[in-house]
Amino acid sequence: MNDVFLRVVGLGPGDVGLLAPQARAALEEADVLAGYSAYMEMVPAGLKEGKTCLSTGMMGEVERCGQAIDAALAGRRTALVCSGDPGVYALAGLVLELLEARGLAERLTVEIVPGIPALCAAAALLGAPLTHDFACVSLSDLLTPWELIRKRLEAALGADFVLGIYNPRSRRRTSQLEETLSLALSLRGPQTPVGLVRQAFRPEQSVRVMRLGELDPVEVDMLSILIIGNASTRIMEDGRGGRMLTPRGYAGKYRLDGN
Amino acid sequence: MNDVFLRVVGLGPGDVGLLAPQARAALEEADVLAGYSAYMEMVPAGLKEGKTCLSTGMMGEVERCGQAIDAALAGRRTALVCSGDPGVYALAGLVLELLEARGLAERLTVEIVPGIPALCAAAALLGAPLTHDFACVSLSDLLTPWELIRKRLEAALGADFVLGIYNPRSRRRTSQLEETLSLALSLRGPQTPVGLVRQAFRPEQSVRVMRLGELDPVEVDMLSILIIGNASTRIMEDGRGGRMLTPRGYAGKYRLDGN
Repeated sequence: MNDVFLRVVGLGPGDVGLLAPQARAALEEADVLAGYSAYMEMVPAGLKEGKTCLSTGMMGEVERCGQAIDAALAGRRTALVCSGDPGVYALAGLVLELLEARGLAERLTVEIVPGIPALCAAAALLGAPLTHDFACVSLSDLLTPWELIRKRLEAALGADFVLGIYNPRSRRRTSQLEETLSLALSLRGPQTPVGLVRQAFRPEQSVRVMRLGELDPVEVDMLSILIIGNASTRIMEDGRGGRMLTPRGYAGKYRLDGN
Repeated sequence: MNDVFLRVVGLGPGDVGLLAPQARAALEEADVLAGYSAYMEMVPAGLKEGKTCLSTGMMGEVERCGQAIDAALAGRRTALVCSGDPGVYALAGLVLELLEARGLAERLTVEIVPGIPALCAAAALLGAPLTHDFACVSLSDLLTPWELIRKRLEAALGADFVLGIYNPRSRRRTSQLEETLSLALSLRGPQTPVGLVRQAFRPEQSVRVMRLGELDPVEVDMLSILIIGNASTRIMEDGRGGRMLTPRGYAGKYRLDGN
């Protein structure tokens, strides 16, 4: 067994209350912490003290993972931090790709420490929008051709998946969300419940439940997760803005009214 | 604001190292813990001491959620425990459904405490199989017609989603997995990488990376999560059984070999 290793650590949504003890321990045990600057800020200050912190900017993913790999190969205990779960639109994949491309796959052990993904954090705040089968799609076409993304959206909407959307819209990239909403409007209709969550479990958090026809794309940004309900999803009125509910099918089998 | 509330708490995969502090606090603060007996066993013993524990058997979901709601309405601080995340094939949805059916939606505040879903736990052990767009499907047709499940499988496989499968096979329910595998074989081919994880992050954990054509359905049970790669997913040889890797597309944009 090789004795150098790299941990890719999921911070979860950002609140330390949702940072798993195993992830915290991985940060504590590390000599080097590497990550995107906005996620490095989510690491509790006490866990950064006395450590080499390698913060890199947006779009610097290859550099970021390369630095972490180099540090680990140099024998330093290294943790590469991701928000959410490292395996969902985060860096676990790129780390493995780089190791493979550099012929290092057998030299370095990579441990992935899972975290609560942004999709589940958003869902928890909305109520129970996922519950059942769901699909998860990123609208960013930086690394994926838009034609493939669009095909996935159509397939998911056509087969009645609840649809979770990452990276829905940036200042420069606006057409993808508009196209997605118009697909959803035509395949699901304007009454479809939709949940929009910005910055789940962070101080700036906002949570909104509404109908597809009411969603203004301008309210959506890169820090938002959008969840589009399936044909069964409904809004449960709770006197506090409503909750999104995708039933699993119990009502067809059991009496739910308690009688 | 009403003053009775119910927390639906995600335990994550089962290892206390992956139980978020917020979930632990919810268990600590509760007077009543309710849950499926196998998940109640995952709650650390110290957190159950001196509390009313309502363990219910398999298939007792309606009873379980009803008991938790009744306890909360009686003014007792109540936590309903789920493994993984409460919003993914777990009880968050049924709790809301019951409140709605019983006209209690405005009387009881429900707080969902998210957890690491089994899919992310399995993915972390396999390497980086999700990375990109994925779909999640349960093969259990107890509450969903098989025709709809099959339609979702076809749509997800046809649109190149990575496919995560919950409840793949029980002793009595075997044909759904066979049909799924034959769909995947015809739409993706026998060389497609597949990951099979049983009991992720529990003492009985097993993790296997293989090709679709090598998978024997008999090895799969209800405690397994199956992940079927997309057209880009490959197996990275690491000298320790291989890891599953779905690249996100960096290789098309950047040099990854470090030169």
